[in-house]
Amino acid sequence: MKIALAQLNYHIGNFESNTEKIISAIDKAKAEGAELVVFAELSVCGYPPRDFLEFKSFIEECGKSITEIAAACKGIAAIVGAPSSNPNIHGKNLFNSAYFLAEGKVEKIISKALLPTYDVFDEYRYFEPSRKFEVVEYKGERIALTICEDIWDIEQDPMYVVNPMDELAKQKPTLMVNIAASPFDYNHADERRKVMRYNAEKYKLPLFYVNHVGAQTELIFDGGSMVADNSGKIVEELNYFKDDFRIFDTGKLNFEKKLHKTDSKIERIHDALVLGIRDYFGKMGFSKAILGLSGGIDSAVVLALASRALGKENVSVLLLPSQFSSDHSISDSEEMCKRLGTKYHIIGIKEIFSVIDNKLKPIFAGMPFNVAEENIQARIRGILLMAMTNKFGSILLNTTNKSEAAVGYGTLYGDMNGGLSILGDVYKTQVYELANHINNLDNCIPENIITKAPSAELRENQKDSDSLPEYSILDEILFDYIEKRLGPKELIAKGYDEKLVMRILKMVNTSEYKRHQLPPVLRVSPKAFGVGRRMPIVGKYLS
Amino acid sequence: MKIALAQLNYHIGNFESNTEKIISAIDKAKAEGAELVVFAELSVCGYPPRDFLEFKSFIEECGKSITEIAAACKGIAAIVGAPSSNPNIHGKNLFNSAYFLAEGKVEKIISKALLPTYDVFDEYRYFEPSRKFEVVEYKGERIALTICEDIWDIEQDPMYVVNPMDELAKQKPTLMVNIAASPFDYNHADERRKVMRYNAEKYKLPLFYVNHVGAQTELIFDGGSMVADNSGKIVEELNYFKDDFRIFDTGKLNFEKKLHKTDSKIERIHDALVLGIRDYFGKMGFSKAILGLSGGIDSAVVLALASRALGKENVSVLLLPSQFSSDHSISDSEEMCKRLGTKYHIIGIKEIFSVIDNKLKPIFAGMPFNVAEENIQARIRGILLMAMTNKFGSILLNTTNKSEAAVGYGTLYGDMNGGLSILGDVYKTQVYELANHINNLDNCIPENIITKAPSAELRENQKDSDSLPEYSILDEILFDYIEKRLGPKELIAKGYDEKLVMRILKMVNTSEYKRHQLPPVLRVSPKAFGVGRRMPIVGKYLS
Repeated sequence: MKIALAQLNYHIGNFESNTEKIISAIDKAKAEGAELVVFAELSVCGYPPRDFLEFKSFIEECGKSITEIAAACKGIAAIVGAPSSNPNIHGKNLFNSAYFLAEGKVEKIISKALLPTYDVFDEYRYFEPSRKFEVVEYKGERIALTICEDIWDIEQDPMYVVNPMDELAKQKPTLMVNIAASPFDYNHADERRKVMRYNAEKYKLPLFYVNHVGAQTELIFDGGSMVADNSGKIVEELNYFKDDFRIFDTGKLNFEKKLHKTDSKIERIHDALVLGIRDYFGKMGFSKAILGLSGGIDSAVVLALASRALGKENVSVLLLPSQFSSDHSISDSEEMCKRLGTKYHIIGIKEIFSVIDNKLKPIFAGMPFNVAEENIQARIRGILLMAMTNKFGSILLNTTNKSEAAVGYGTLYGDMNGGLSILGDVYKTQVYELANHINNLDNCIPENIITKAPSAELRENQKDSDSLPEYSILDEILFDYIEKRLGPKELIAKGYDEKLVMRILKMVNTSEYKRHQLPPVLRVSPKAFGVGRRMPIVGKYLS
Repeated sequence: MKIALAQLNYHIGNFESNTEKIISAIDKAKAEGAELVVFAELSVCGYPPRDFLEFKSFIEECGKSITEIAAACKGIAAIVGAPSSNPNIHGKNLFNSAYFLAEGKVEKIISKALLPTYDVFDEYRYFEPSRKFEVVEYKGERIALTICEDIWDIEQDPMYVVNPMDELAKQKPTLMVNIAASPFDYNHADERRKVMRYNAEKYKLPLFYVNHVGAQTELIFDGGSMVADNSGKIVEELNYFKDDFRIFDTGKLNFEKKLHKTDSKIERIHDALVLGIRDYFGKMGFSKAILGLSGGIDSAVVLALASRALGKENVSVLLLPSQFSSDHSISDSEEMCKRLGTKYHIIGIKEIFSVIDNKLKPIFAGMPFNVAEENIQARIRGILLMAMTNKFGSILLNTTNKSEAAVGYGTLYGDMNGGLSILGDVYKTQVYELANHINNLDNCIPENIITKAPSAELRENQKDSDSLPEYSILDEILFDYIEKRLGPKELIAKGYDEKLVMRILKMVNTSEYKRHQLPPVLRVSPKAFGVGRRMPIVGKYLS
């Protein structure tokens, strides 16, 4: 049988656009002789639809789209993802389902058994796990049709009490299809290949896997749909970070195409962030971005990424020097704008600061310059940048990195502003790697921006290292605490200095209130602030 | 048997304080002749612990506390809530459990079967549902011990596929104990009574129910622990919004104490908000609050609530008039400060606005005054208020109401600032009711603040009604859309004007990005922004 895999970029709740994309891929598949075309999990409504699923009218729209798509399935079958109603009175009202469409109608609905509810996933919030396992018969094939997580519970400490493929295997399927919504992190492509190989090898069946591509706010889907043969060999992979469409013949899988070269972690992060920016703007209906260029590495990297994502002509910057700004903060920024051809304006903030400072003097009577005055400067910059977005209809890009966000080294309503956080899941040490990677591509970041000592420049001769440990050691401890969830004893046992560990953990935990108000963070790691890591604010533990 | 109910205010992750409170209640219960003392769900670690549950060291701390508490149980038994390990290799690693402690040790662990995963609840993110049902035998009684949601699945459309009490009933229990973490909303006390009566009546058993009291960031627990007799009559209720401790004799439940009078919805909201403010500050380790007093009703109500929660001496305000401020905005605010004895400062923002405006002029060359300039004013106020918090170690109270938050009528990094949103779950029409209720109590809000037409005063002669429908109709549609999840067709079918419905829904959906950065919102309704309502940002549906 000839099976087409359609890897598309959906938009949550945009039924018109999603349906049109799906139908046009069905037409294409049919024209090219495919007998079945496979789309991703919840492709009809986009993933994750979140609480829209609680609206009866949203579910009805899904139903209408299904009817429309089914009508296009004449002379070809299609598998699309959408919610379906649970006919049983007990349990939640919806299933997360795969619709098998043929002959102009819904032939079968297969529902997801394993509902990921951890990290960025909230599926049991909406769906009832299915406990019915049934192969789909079509043109002599017996298809074991599963949905994403259904084939992922392969570790030694299984998270679920049933294994859907074990159940389906009893019905002697001839091939497997898995439709997925499997978001990017820098390790995920490798894990995905491992899982596909494992299943194909274990069940001795070819596996056809279709993922989403494109970003939905924080979640970036990297595609990487693939086919494995019945020995567990990956026959072919579809594009990463791009739409794709390919047709495979189940009878001719005994070849191994050269797989995509495995990009380095930093290349993947780079590509993911570019896609994340592009889709956020595209799906929000905006084209123009602005940011403050400080002369530091974070804003330089964001400018480079945004220019690639949106086009250089769509990104403009403000240079906002204060009395504490170094000369090179301006000259380095101007040099970068020159290299990229970026429009920029310079607005000194000293005078604004003076007026505000004078207004507060009677109240602050005689109290020394401290974080209050530091933050005023960051917040003046915030005002100026936001005024630009309001006047010109652009979105402010946030430049906070993950290390800063972790320890609360940033000013709420100042440099923590923005519609989207580009680097909020990228540690400072990784920002350096990104900068080097970017420069390998087009050398747009002046060397001095990369080599200078990091500084917020909010007081005389300030350096990040005045308040923070060196980033190399800070990032290591943060990674172990945030990504690995090691507690203080485990961290100290690893050899880190006790005082340093306790100081860092305290900084992280007491800045939960700040991160609560951070813009949505593009997720590139297995444990991202915001959508992936959910902590109490008033919690006392470890602080 | 004499059973003590201990209704306490826990602090998430504060094992020392929680354990001390629990042990001291055990000692008290013993001294007063009780044979069993019951505490709330997850009382040992506080509720909700969120991703702290993913830290091995957090679970170990729970275990240590349990050992300590068990050691205090000599000559008395106790039921406390804490996570426990799932011994089965399949499924999630933790249960949400009730520990039955006696004779200095853990006698039995009973785990929760129904894991609420909707609205503010995320329990399946962390816990495996238990499928083992077993009564606890103690001193001749057979206790059907359940945890919160376990006895709540009583509706005609059950959300779960098992009913724990039906299973336990087969084992002929003699009484029921339910330990809970059941957060406040203005309907919840009534529902809780209904559920308790239903269970006691259905199973013909007395029911001993213990809830949390106290707030954990957004979630406010109102207490209201209670005892029902085996006919479904509520024998007695513990305090609302306060710690409480009472002892009941299972042999003497045939009386009905006068229940707490059912407070009006607005009284409950008032009490909940006061507790929410008090606990946020207390648990964050802060005592002082600040806010901007605009002369409008929202900030006046927040000032009144905060003064009650924190003490008048701990709340100060800034009056921040611009060239667009009415005279009464100052005089009304001063009058209110006088009535309450609130410290205040006046800082005119006109001069600061001019400097910023001039700096932007070359870039904005000739473009008309618009939302950019409006927002600059709100953001200047934000800077001044935040400078005060930084200088004096206070927390800024946010005064955004739910109607504004819903339609995006507010300035990010301006009036949307704050550590905690007091009214973000209170519609504008309810804010008026709150103001009247507050004035009935102590007449601190000048009448003119309540009667004037609402205005942001960010341009000449601005009124809220220039951009928004009248609040009476706006709030009705918002309620039906947000709380009732009615879609456009259903709203129009109810008789609302189609254009108005579409305009409002669009405003709500396109301001999702703003609400993402709103401070945590004290939850008082069944569907609150932030913790309870979780929508996509890039979603297209209904906008």
